[in-house]
Amino acid sequence: MPYLDTRDDARDEPPPSSVSASVFDTDTTVRPVGAGEYAAELSPRWNSAPALPNGGYQLALCTRAMADAVPGYPDPLVVAATFLRPASPGPATIAVETVRAGRTVATAEARLNQNGKEVVRAVATFGDLAAATGPTLERGEPPTLPPPHECTGFTEAAAAFGAAIAEQVEYRVPELPGWLRGEPSGRTEASFWMRFTDGRDADTLSLVALVDAAAPVVADAGHLGSSTIQLTVHVRRRPAPGWLACHAVTRHLIDGYHEEDFEIWDAEGRLVAQGRQFAVVGRR
Amino acid sequence: MPYLDTRDDARDEPPPSSVSASVFDTDTTVRPVGAGEYAAELSPRWNSAPALPNGGYQLALCTRAMADAVPGYPDPLVVAATFLRPASPGPATIAVETVRAGRTVATAEARLNQNGKEVVRAVATFGDLAAATGPTLERGEPPTLPPPHECTGFTEAAAAFGAAIAEQVEYRVPELPGWLRGEPSGRTEASFWMRFTDGRDADTLSLVALVDAAAPVVADAGHLGSSTIQLTVHVRRRPAPGWLACHAVTRHLIDGYHEEDFEIWDAEGRLVAQGRQFAVVGRR
Repeated sequence: MPYLDTRDDARDEPPPSSVSASVFDTDTTVRPVGAGEYAAELSPRWNSAPALPNGGYQLALCTRAMADAVPGYPDPLVVAATFLRPASPGPATIAVETVRAGRTVATAEARLNQNGKEVVRAVATFGDLAAATGPTLERGEPPTLPPPHECTGFTEAAAAFGAAIAEQVEYRVPELPGWLRGEPSGRTEASFWMRFTDGRDADTLSLVALVDAAAPVVADAGHLGSSTIQLTVHVRRRPAPGWLACHAVTRHLIDGYHEEDFEIWDAEGRLVAQGRQFAVVGRR
Repeated sequence: MPYLDTRDDARDEPPPSSVSASVFDTDTTVRPVGAGEYAAELSPRWNSAPALPNGGYQLALCTRAMADAVPGYPDPLVVAATFLRPASPGPATIAVETVRAGRTVATAEARLNQNGKEVVRAVATFGDLAAATGPTLERGEPPTLPPPHECTGFTEAAAAFGAAIAEQVEYRVPELPGWLRGEPSGRTEASFWMRFTDGRDADTLSLVALVDAAAPVVADAGHLGSSTIQLTVHVRRRPAPGWLACHAVTRHLIDGYHEEDFEIWDAEGRLVAQGRQFAVVGRR
């Protein structure tokens, strides 16, 4: 499996050595300011369009606040969010309610507010993936990709669209997506590599952001503007360090509404997260 | 496409003529009892195991209460629920909050409580599918199935497992699932027909229940007991009358946790709903 050969990558472009505070960790900091209340600052570094913070980034902020409220349940297992209004870079508050803390899992709800209006409502169930002991059956496969050093990056091209997030998340593709070249292919499916640009390895918290960190695949069918209405993330394993192999597909675009399914596989070829979103093109 | 040939079915076993109040409508009745408060009665007719109401049925109750709170947005578009505790047949209250009512969509939250404890928390976004006017691209296909009259039912066999729901929802399968014969096939994928036994046609509200109305496909891998933690439903179209063609698959069972993806296609061969749940086998 060529995608496992991530050591080769070190010969090409080594990631910066891990830093004590990664950009992601810095920019998802939440500060307790009262019972179940957190203050946050949405950084413009994670914009997926001009002045529009990426939905996965907003969800990571919510998830970090919820995680703080349910200590002892280290991993988000499933996170479901409804995006109510466009967020904007700047201050936010996150109100967290602990819904239930049970024997193996705990559920919390977060409401991210900006300027007195609710922007995101998220419900997450946390647990301990290291303590999970049930059966395993894998019927899927990681995407087939050449190793990262044989792939192409497109940080500058993406940044030209106002997607500052492309400077924080590095993508490697077998070939540039058609929409980036002004020639949409009509395909609604893509496989690519992803990692944090600053060398921070993914963990279960950051996977919640990363399932939404790429441009919607409907872009290559000519639909550049897609707004996420709802996003559900399943976190399946703690990821191994290194590049993440991603696969995104939209199978059903119906009267403007579409789903997008997103899988992330780690450098050891194991599924680590699944995302499914419900979105709409050309509206809102 | 043989599955379109549902007229043939009339020669075999015609469904009862539609009744003025279907069992589903009767059993999902919610009664306003105050501001944002509804009373409901969970019927044992929708149990998927002895004394355990089906999760999709619980979600339909929540969705019906939420729909009542956001008139003018006739269709649930996306419904996401976390199942916090086992429900039981009997009385329940549903507290509904209108989160946001916007130009084209409205979001509400429901908390279904029994005996003073919260059992389900659901967030749903409603809109008007008949008013959706964006582009359409279909990259999927309905499951390949012989027509319903050439398939097999298994109402009695399912009822023997304590799944009373099998008397309200009629299934037709090309061949009986292995687990029902005591010979699990090891497959984690199934295609089958489904409809309400009393002849009620599906609508967008009932699709929310129907994506969870079949036994989990991991049953055929030997895992009969699976508990849903979270379920997200996308309702994509108003279904045509008649049989529904369903496809369910679990691709990743990891340390006991698994997803199940569920598609429902209507009698005209159009995708009408997708469900994805996060569940755990042999625990809770």
